[in-house]
Amino acid sequence: MFASGLIAFPITPMDADGRVDAAALRRLVRRLVDAEVDAVCVLGSTGSYPFVARDERRRAVEAAAAEIDGALPLMAGVGALRTDHAVLHTQDAAGAGAVMGLLAPVSYTPLTDEEVETHFATVAGEGGLPLCIYDNPASTHFAISDALSARLSRIPNIVAVKSPSPPGPEAKDRVEALRASTPEGFSVGFSGDATAAETMIAGADAWYSVLGGLFPAPLVAFRRAVAAGDIEEARRLDLALRPLWDLFREFSGLRVVYAAARLTGLCAADPPRPILPLPAAAQAKVAEVIANLRGTLDPRL
Amino acid sequence: MFASGLIAFPITPMDADGRVDAAALRRLVRRLVDAEVDAVCVLGSTGSYPFVARDERRRAVEAAAAEIDGALPLMAGVGALRTDHAVLHTQDAAGAGAVMGLLAPVSYTPLTDEEVETHFATVAGEGGLPLCIYDNPASTHFAISDALSARLSRIPNIVAVKSPSPPGPEAKDRVEALRASTPEGFSVGFSGDATAAETMIAGADAWYSVLGGLFPAPLVAFRRAVAAGDIEEARRLDLALRPLWDLFREFSGLRVVYAAARLTGLCAADPPRPILPLPAAAQAKVAEVIANLRGTLDPRL
Repeated sequence: MFASGLIAFPITPMDADGRVDAAALRRLVRRLVDAEVDAVCVLGSTGSYPFVARDERRRAVEAAAAEIDGALPLMAGVGALRTDHAVLHTQDAAGAGAVMGLLAPVSYTPLTDEEVETHFATVAGEGGLPLCIYDNPASTHFAISDALSARLSRIPNIVAVKSPSPPGPEAKDRVEALRASTPEGFSVGFSGDATAAETMIAGADAWYSVLGGLFPAPLVAFRRAVAAGDIEEARRLDLALRPLWDLFREFSGLRVVYAAARLTGLCAADPPRPILPLPAAAQAKVAEVIANLRGTLDPRL
Repeated sequence: MFASGLIAFPITPMDADGRVDAAALRRLVRRLVDAEVDAVCVLGSTGSYPFVARDERRRAVEAAAAEIDGALPLMAGVGALRTDHAVLHTQDAAGAGAVMGLLAPVSYTPLTDEEVETHFATVAGEGGLPLCIYDNPASTHFAISDALSARLSRIPNIVAVKSPSPPGPEAKDRVEALRASTPEGFSVGFSGDATAAETMIAGADAWYSVLGGLFPAPLVAFRRAVAAGDIEEARRLDLALRPLWDLFREFSGLRVVYAAARLTGLCAADPPRPILPLPAAAQAKVAEVIANLRGTLDPRL
């Protein structure tokens, strides 16, 4: 199963004109390979895929594939507002070395379930890659119901779902509900770093992680603790990261990881406009939290 | 004032690959000029602007400008997810003959007020066209507060706002709130055909109309009734259109006008995928409503 374990989402370093800095992206991806994440997904929401032009998307996938060199599975965001564009992005990603596409129902005009189902069936049929359903209503403004997930999960070539993680106490029920509505062997995973830990403890297949795309070490440790059945240690790690989760909630994961990448010298890119770098006061908070975590949790942050 | 009266929003006829059918668009625009709408806006949400590539957007504006030939003001949607793209679309629209740009805060990653303000200031400063603020949270997923409207309305080159119309009984208060928060001479207008009539009766400057882009006659009659102070006649016309407003609410204005354009032989285009043509049962409802209105209200529908 490709979509399993800790799946790390790096940012896509770009200049102001949207040109991908392939060398900077490769440095971020190298860090993820070295940390032994289970898979890398470029051009997720954290990778700003809707802001990246077709040729630049292909360059980003090629750069990541070259750096990974088969060491682990590479996923790529393939979503687009137009169905034909999503098909092209998927074909491009396949040609550039990705083994799975992450497809969100990006919307402007609100979409119906039938429209989303047709969209997914078209991309799955013509794109040439296994797909993960990307359910992220906060960005796509379309919520995939369990009934729709059930239908989508039976389309050939659709093999996984990335669902928003619920509050901790509801994690077990959400995992079970998605398991019940999808076929045997279908990968059930979650995003939303602040609450995803409990879904893994409850038996989810994958954590699609924003923080894991920049600071993979503590999340790889979490993943290993869960795999070893050491839930106490897993919860300790998640709890230690809570100051970061609070910043994600306050400013969004995207803005925080851009600030953290710059503050720690890993990457000096800014998010694509109109998204602005965090204001100075917020950056100071990010710096303080990272400094504390380096002292108390993991110096590799 | 450019942004005044009945501003009609035609669909953008395109083929499955997103190529604009300029001749079909000109036929739709001709109908609007002949009906004496006050202005035409191409590439609004009804014109599917987020689905239209840069070159095709320019072709659409050029086609409309050629057909209008100075008879009335031409507006064009210039919104984009990226700030630099919105600037380019605005410059293109200016070069192609538009006299005003309609700028929405299109979002994927949810935006902050500061980000939207910077986005608007950049496009207003570099785009080369007066701008209308396009507040349409149902599509852009960003709601422009009155406080933000107040700040945006003081940016040079931002001259109008298109705001979602409230339920009828709240129309007067909304018009007054927007008047109070924007400068003297700033155009306050509304969209949302099903409830926009009462905002015009309450003194709004403009009705940004989806139906007006296909069936302008009854809305021009409405506009004239309001101008003549014949509120009873204005309300009669709006009430007569209620069966259409109900369809707009049920299926969206966009899907209904595409179906109506095809059913009445005005234009055979389909909306861009993933948006699907209305199912047969819904099309039958649209046909029935139009047939009834042709008999009871206006044979030009």
